[in-house]
Amino acid sequence: MRDVEVVTVKSIELTSPIMIEGLPGVGHVGKLVAEYLIEELAAEKIIEIYSPHFPPQVIVNPDGTVRMVRNEIFAYSSDEIELLILVGDHQSNTNEGHYILSEAFLDIALNYNVKRIYTLGGYGIGQLVEKPRVIGAANKPELVDEMKKYGVEFSENEPGGGIIGASGLILGLGGMKGIEAVCLMGVTSGYLVDPRSAQAVLRILTEILGIKVDMEALEERAKEMETIVARLKEMEQMQGEIEPGEISTEEHLDYIR
Amino acid sequence: MRDVEVVTVKSIELTSPIMIEGLPGVGHVGKLVAEYLIEELAAEKIIEIYSPHFPPQVIVNPDGTVRMVRNEIFAYSSDEIELLILVGDHQSNTNEGHYILSEAFLDIALNYNVKRIYTLGGYGIGQLVEKPRVIGAANKPELVDEMKKYGVEFSENEPGGGIIGASGLILGLGGMKGIEAVCLMGVTSGYLVDPRSAQAVLRILTEILGIKVDMEALEERAKEMETIVARLKEMEQMQGEIEPGEISTEEHLDYIR
Amino acid sequence: MRDVEVVTVKSIELTSPIMIEGLPGVGHVGKLVAEYLIEELAAEKIIEIYSPHFPPQVIVNPDGTVRMVRNEIFAYSSDEIELLILVGDHQSNTNEGHYILSEAFLDIALNYNVKRIYTLGGYGIGQLVEKPRVIGAANKPELVDEMKKYGVEFSENEPGGGIIGASGLILGLGGMKGIEAVCLMGVTSGYLVDPRSAQAVLRILTEILGIKVDMEALEERAKEMETIVARLKEMEQMQGEIEPGEISTEEHLDYIR
Amino acid sequence: MRDVEVVTVKSIELTSPIMIEGLPGVGHVGKLVAEYLIEELAAEKIIEIYSPHFPPQVIVNPDGTVRMVRNEIFAYSSDEIELLILVGDHQSNTNEGHYILSEAFLDIALNYNVKRIYTLGGYGIGQLVEKPRVIGAANKPELVDEMKKYGVEFSENEPGGGIIGASGLILGLGGMKGIEAVCLMGVTSGYLVDPRSAQAVLRILTEILGIKVDMEALEERAKEMETIVARLKEMEQMQGEIEPGEISTEEHLDYIR
Repeated sequence: MRDVEVVTVKSIELTSPIMIEGLPGVGHVGKLVAEYLIEELAAEKIIEIYSPHFPPQVIVNPDGTVRMVRNEIFAYSSDEIELLILVGDHQSNTNEGHYILSEAFLDIALNYNVKRIYTLGGYGIGQLVEKPRVIGAANKPELVDEMKKYGVEFSENEPGGGIIGASGLILGLGGMKGIEAVCLMGVTSGYLVDPRSAQAVLRILTEILGIKVDMEALEERAKEMETIVARLKEMEQMQGEIEPGEISTEEHLDYIR
Repeated sequence: MRDVEVVTVKSIELTSPIMIEGLPGVGHVGKLVAEYLIEELAAEKIIEIYSPHFPPQVIVNPDGTVRMVRNEIFAYSSDEIELLILVGDHQSNTNEGHYILSEAFLDIALNYNVKRIYTLGGYGIGQLVEKPRVIGAANKPELVDEMKKYGVEFSENEPGGGIIGASGLILGLGGMKGIEAVCLMGVTSGYLVDPRSAQAVLRILTEILGIKVDMEALEERAKEMETIVARLKEMEQMQGEIEPGEISTEEHLDYIR
Repeated sequence: MRDVEVVTVKSIELTSPIMIEGLPGVGHVGKLVAEYLIEELAAEKIIEIYSPHFPPQVIVNPDGTVRMVRNEIFAYSSDEIELLILVGDHQSNTNEGHYILSEAFLDIALNYNVKRIYTLGGYGIGQLVEKPRVIGAANKPELVDEMKKYGVEFSENEPGGGIIGASGLILGLGGMKGIEAVCLMGVTSGYLVDPRSAQAVLRILTEILGIKVDMEALEERAKEMETIVARLKEMEQMQGEIEPGEISTEEHLDYIR
Repeated sequence: MRDVEVVTVKSIELTSPIMIEGLPGVGHVGKLVAEYLIEELAAEKIIEIYSPHFPPQVIVNPDGTVRMVRNEIFAYSSDEIELLILVGDHQSNTNEGHYILSEAFLDIALNYNVKRIYTLGGYGIGQLVEKPRVIGAANKPELVDEMKKYGVEFSENEPGGGIIGASGLILGLGGMKGIEAVCLMGVTSGYLVDPRSAQAVLRILTEILGIKVDMEALEERAKEMETIVARLKEMEQMQGEIEPGEISTEEHLDYIR
């Protein structure tokens, strides 16, 4: 197996699609949005990407069959828009692998004449988020201005420490290859899968793309998660003061993924 | 030394053997079963596999001689069945090594015209197992149905988190190369070497293969382990309540390997 | 992307410049000095260095744009002196990467006919430093004697454990390639960014180079940091005795970078 | 820099020397013996070995100069014996590097027509050793018998877990290349540099080699260490019972290296 194996599972003609990346990361925000888009748009898979830089394991499907850890690209095409949506089980497990895989994603983008990429992620702030916000980063100053019009926030100190993994490297390496790229990050606690944050990102993304997507299923999932969080908070209050060494709500939340 | 060195120690003609993998893993269940089969069937070693991805050490034999960490393939051939059995001291110590070695195993399988592989492992559930169970995964839906007939259990949430290492990758990569493969996992605590779980796997495996293997030695080993566990439990009860910070039975068990 | 990508952003003719390395490290002493020099001398960037051995992330600029993690070389040329100043966001994240990158830096040095390199760093002693000191190391005995005249201290036990990363490897590998190199280390606590230590290094370095640099901005930054440290000490005394398990001043300082 | 750089610093003609390896390891036993031999025999350096698999740092000499982390081979030749002695600052810092470097050592051995190698190390047992013992391992059964005559102990369970690093791999890989190799391990606590254990190894090694080496300097060093250990034990007894959480003698010893 070479460093990256790109398998085309369906040939498709596209003029100049927009690429969207939603690999796993903080709060699984990017993954939630990208997978939701694939489902709602009924996008079809065109490419599978395998690599020895992914964790050395297989995923067991609900029916008992297995498959290699992989990343996948789905395509959607309508009269208004063409999309390539990149999702996957895991990001690279090695340092160099992150660079190698991001370059492979960009090679695919160039191959399909992609002119712009949106990478999606979460920005963990270590506490429950009251009001959903989406912060951004981009590989050209013009893109920053464009994004601000849609309510994407840019502030000097967010995200501190840079953007780790594919969502960041696609912007950085993309800039070097002349592909415009924007990263949209839903602000999230970082402790749990956060469909409410995903919703905020999806809302802005669909507005940018000029497409309409039914939000209901995501709204339901967000409500479910809020019910769980509310119950955990209640349980905690009933216990009174938490003893030193006890597990607090935040730690509980860590298990809900 | 290249990434993998495959040394043929004995040339052998086989028509289309079944391959069985039992490398070290959770509860050493797979290793116990595979090594037991080799001994009971008096299989003979045909291949040694060396790699700089194995831990950088040598194994000291009881007679004071040493040998490189390695994986080995044994062959067994009778009128009813042909087997290739893969065992070894360790799995890969690096991320890429897991992929490289699993591919090497499959290349050997293809070379010997292997049409089906059974990978054996343990599935740790974090508590002592009352009733032995064997859960499965496969790289084709037909195999799942076939295995169910032998009592292999398939449930949506087991194994959660996928199958790590060679037992998983052989299924995943094997599927891509057109080799049927099934993983049989003995449910085990994960805290100790588990011959009782190995027995459950061996029972199902021999039924699938249609061969007969004397179970007595494994039964004895299982009873010995149960005696040790029982004694530890007793000791714990005699101590009365365990003081905070004390080592509990489960932690004791961790040392019995 | 190859192991190292060297991008020349501006062609420049130099006779035989002196190279100064100030990559991130203990107390960010080297980085502070090198970046201060670049600013005060208005040196201009001539080279960018990219590598998959850097951490897999991008840096977000204050304006919301991003850029790849990189190292950079700035050039300064006057009637008295020619300088190449190497700075960057991070050092290598992998073992081999440290060697590969240091060799790349030296190849660039050879290319520009560099005859001498000063690498700058901090030497952490685990406690607040009363009197700033600069200790040294070099890749030729004559350089040790030369440096002593400028007040650089050389003692048998400092730095114990050697010099880690580019500041060390440039000396070691440079010696093998026939380039003279000296490492100047500001003694520092190791707990916080230390502009006072950087000042001590800058003072000696400018004397060695025979150039004049306005120290005022660095003096201000050092005073600010001293005010913060003094406040933290005060807070600690007000709390009286620190309870076991409490965070002490030193740990607080760790967050001020 | 390639994976291994072998630099010949002095050409020398040898008929068929014996190689001795004493790289850093448990209790620095092997290193102590090998360096002691080099000093007492006034062996001269013939080879330096560099590698990006060594830790990315330089060693600072007492005079303020630095040098790359390296391994070195010294040669000694008299009417009775020819020796190649391998010593160094560090072993590999990466998994594959251990294999690559051990192969490089063996290539050098083959180049000099080495027929036998002694690798030296320590075997840590986790408690102070009352009576010095030397345990062994070898890559041929005949060598085990031969070593037993010199008082080298071979027992089924020592060393449990195999021999890690160059001392082990040289035996394993050496066996594959047809070079006889023996590992002599001084039993040691594993908590401190152990010249007493080194003495036991040196005594047996010189007897095997049929050479005489003045033991006085090593005896002095062993006595010094015993004085330190005795003082620490005394201090401990004076403190009476050690409070839970206090540092015990054994932990103190860890700092004396």
